[in-house]
Amino acid sequence: MYGNTRIRVDWRASAELMGVVLIYFAVPLSFPLLLAVYFEEPLTPFLVAIGVTLALGAGLRRLGDPEENLGPREAFLAVALIWLLVAVVGAVPFVVAGAGTIAHPVNALFESMSGLTTTGATVLVDFSVHDRSIMMWRQLIQWLGGLGILILATAVLSELGVGGAQLMESETRTRNVNKLTPHIAETARLIWGLYVGLTLLAAVVFFVLGLAFDPRMGPYNALAHAFTSVATAGFSPEPLSAGAFHPVLQWAIVPFMILGSTSFILLYVFINGEPRRLLRNEEFRFYVGGLGIFAALVALVLFVTGEQGGAIEPTIRHAVFNVTSIVTTTGYASTDFNLWSPAATYLLFLAMFTGGMVGSTTCSIKSLRWLVALKSLRRELFTSVHPEAVRPVRVSGSPVAEDTIRDVYAYLLLGIVIFVGLAVFVAVDAARVGMDLSAFEAMGAAASTFLNIGPAFGEAGPYGTYAAFPMSTRSVMIVLMWVGRIEMIPVLVLFTRTFWTS
Amino acid sequence: MYGNTRIRVDWRASAELMGVVLIYFAVPLSFPLLLAVYFEEPLTPFLVAIGVTLALGAGLRRLGDPEENLGPREAFLAVALIWLLVAVVGAVPFVVAGAGTIAHPVNALFESMSGLTTTGATVLVDFSVHDRSIMMWRQLIQWLGGLGILILATAVLSELGVGGAQLMESETRTRNVNKLTPHIAETARLIWGLYVGLTLLAAVVFFVLGLAFDPRMGPYNALAHAFTSVATAGFSPEPLSAGAFHPVLQWAIVPFMILGSTSFILLYVFINGEPRRLLRNEEFRFYVGGLGIFAALVALVLFVTGEQGGAIEPTIRHAVFNVTSIVTTTGYASTDFNLWSPAATYLLFLAMFTGGMVGSTTCSIKSLRWLVALKSLRRELFTSVHPEAVRPVRVSGSPVAEDTIRDVYAYLLLGIVIFVGLAVFVAVDAARVGMDLSAFEAMGAAASTFLNIGPAFGEAGPYGTYAAFPMSTRSVMIVLMWVGRIEMIPVLVLFTRTFWTS
Ligand SMILES: [K+]
Ligand SMILES: [K+]
Repeated sequence: MYGNTRIRVDWRASAELMGVVLIYFAVPLSFPLLLAVYFEEPLTPFLVAIGVTLALGAGLRRLGDPEENLGPREAFLAVALIWLLVAVVGAVPFVVAGAGTIAHPVNALFESMSGLTTTGATVLVDFSVHDRSIMMWRQLIQWLGGLGILILATAVLSELGVGGAQLMESETRTRNVNKLTPHIAETARLIWGLYVGLTLLAAVVFFVLGLAFDPRMGPYNALAHAFTSVATAGFSPEPLSAGAFHPVLQWAIVPFMILGSTSFILLYVFINGEPRRLLRNEEFRFYVGGLGIFAALVALVLFVTGEQGGAIEPTIRHAVFNVTSIVTTTGYASTDFNLWSPAATYLLFLAMFTGGMVGSTTCSIKSLRWLVALKSLRRELFTSVHPEAVRPVRVSGSPVAEDTIRDVYAYLLLGIVIFVGLAVFVAVDAARVGMDLSAFEAMGAAASTFLNIGPAFGEAGPYGTYAAFPMSTRSVMIVLMWVGRIEMIPVLVLFTRTFWTS
Repeated sequence: MYGNTRIRVDWRASAELMGVVLIYFAVPLSFPLLLAVYFEEPLTPFLVAIGVTLALGAGLRRLGDPEENLGPREAFLAVALIWLLVAVVGAVPFVVAGAGTIAHPVNALFESMSGLTTTGATVLVDFSVHDRSIMMWRQLIQWLGGLGILILATAVLSELGVGGAQLMESETRTRNVNKLTPHIAETARLIWGLYVGLTLLAAVVFFVLGLAFDPRMGPYNALAHAFTSVATAGFSPEPLSAGAFHPVLQWAIVPFMILGSTSFILLYVFINGEPRRLLRNEEFRFYVGGLGIFAALVALVLFVTGEQGGAIEPTIRHAVFNVTSIVTTTGYASTDFNLWSPAATYLLFLAMFTGGMVGSTTCSIKSLRWLVALKSLRRELFTSVHPEAVRPVRVSGSPVAEDTIRDVYAYLLLGIVIFVGLAVFVAVDAARVGMDLSAFEAMGAAASTFLNIGPAFGEAGPYGTYAAFPMSTRSVMIVLMWVGRIEMIPVLVLFTRTFWTS
């Protein structure tokens, strides 16, 4: 009762929710446990993690109170801390297994947070020292992170109106889906079913194509890459990422990255007999169009600079694959794009700031926000000439509220400010320890972690490792992967005094 | 009359205004003419230019009609085309003189536009081949550009509400200045007096310190650097820029760059007995504070990387001078900062996006816009927690209208979008011709020209030349220096159909 007199957040409501999620987290942890049994690898990493998550979960439920009211503040607190605690528990197997760079707690937390946030930036150096069960856990965390963000994006953030996320809500609520699924829980169930279905489809497609074209794509790799393509997450048990596989498999991965970045609500509607709602959706067209333009520009630059010796299929494939990987924020690589010319790498860097559609597993800014902002810019030019005119900004025919436009702008600016701050920190921290890092590489690593892409340039390249950065940089990146993934606001508000006291 | 049935802009009103300005432009052109007489250098470059400007001016006045109404559209048209035509006329002496790189028309226009927009990016390669009258013309164009932008910023853009410029208007109108200067023409006269006074003060200070410390700072250089420091413009007749002079002179230039970037309205009020209005102004504090933070960070990096062998005065001087030069958008250099470590050059790159105060000669985004945007971001965090709360954003105590906040956001985003577009063009164009240009150098050159700073990194470094870029890149830069200087909107609206027809 003492707490309630000063702290005005019903934190017991948040603790209850956190406790429930942590207890459920024991279920996925049993999958790598079964794999470890099958491969005859040590079981302790997963047994310890299951013990930790159950103990933490039970403890939080004891502290928690299901009767308290879960308002916006309690939801922000729960969302932010769930992501943090699950990342901590997810790191336990890496530390207990004790192999390679991720035996160190900071690296383990980096890898786990990078996984859970579907970033896919790795501090692994030698992939061969890790057990298959550990490597699959790394893939599964990403898939769980993708699921978590789907539920967060479709059911929670839209309710809280974070950075224009209410726009997606109007898409959900005002049309047919409304009648089909009156409750958030129902929406979540539909989306979860679609997510599982897409993942299984990807696994089957990869496995069958593997049988035909590439023995390295066995059942293990098919499942591992299904997990991290549909989640637009990007970890791969292969040090060469998608570059380890036959070109046909690289092409096969592309549509699953695109589907993972498409609004799951609209995908659901598409499957259920209303394909036009997706195909006519302005955000979808903007996202796919932007992806196409970036891919064409990169292909052009690769042709001009003769990157693939002028060969047509490899040039187009590497342009399409890596641009799709970056735009969808997956982070796979079909080749070391780090070695491309400055013009091509610069285009990839810019593509990092786009992202797929709101209501998907994609990260970064997302197409809807860019679309609203650019449409609002066009309107601004119009009203400069006609100051007296009133003309709402419309997306897919519906007017966008002026408050929402301001939210979107604020979100974009906040993202840019945090990105720049991180880039400065990375550059100055590297100078401090004498690490050879160019300004562009600092920006790339900052964007790629904060926007949850994964690979960047230089040491952080797709075939490189973030273990090359100083410990202090890696620690700050852990925090900013977390901040970036849950759309910044839920974490940042925790650091305002008004959150706790007013 | 035919024109009026389809084109709905009273372009004859714009033509009249353009004609008047071009005729007046003959007056400053007679200054280098007199210098040429004094130095016994060719007179034709300036005689031809005077002839061209008088002929163009008279022609436009014939087309024009002083009776037609000068509304927002006509003002945009006149502003945009005046800047363009004056730059064209300003280039004539360079072409007629026929010496060095600027004998080529595109280079001459680049140098002239870079001058008039107070950018200070140069395509000169060998400074020694040019007459002193030509080099002084280059300085004088910058000073005229500074004056032009002062009048535009205080009298025109605030009326048209470009990108939140109306905020400055409220500062002007609602307080004492209102009573002092009820008419725009009167405001312009006060500001013009202050501008001339500051320039003369700078010239005297530089000349006197030159007598005491450095014979290279004679009357010619004192006037040349007075012109381009108060105008935050950055051209120098010395290939080493401020690095050619004694440290005391470098220190002496710093306050004039800062004054040139301070609101001239508030400077006027300061001199006239109300210093507190400047010192308590939130934009002023934000601008000076930001400058201080950047300078401290750069000094820190220079110490850590041992750039000046650890010597204290040179380290602090070079950090303060070059950061001030970039933040105020002047573009002088006291040393080749291009050779600094990535962390230091990256900080300079970021400083390019700040700028001084609205209502000064400064370029770039300007502090007021950042202040409004960041305050609005803070408010956004507050309303995330308290969705029901209404809390206006305040600057220096006055609430900022929500429309204005949206204008500011739109302006920031538009600036970023155009910057990114130019950077992509520069990078891809360099790749096309096989020019060795890093992604960071492409971004630096794009920011430095579009935001009217001047020098950047690599070939575009403070001791380098933009002549190293392909002709196509230089041509696009000419356009974007123009677009950037007059705050984008007046040019961009000309390319919308609604401007001409509705
Ligand atoms: K990713
Ligand atoms: K400048």
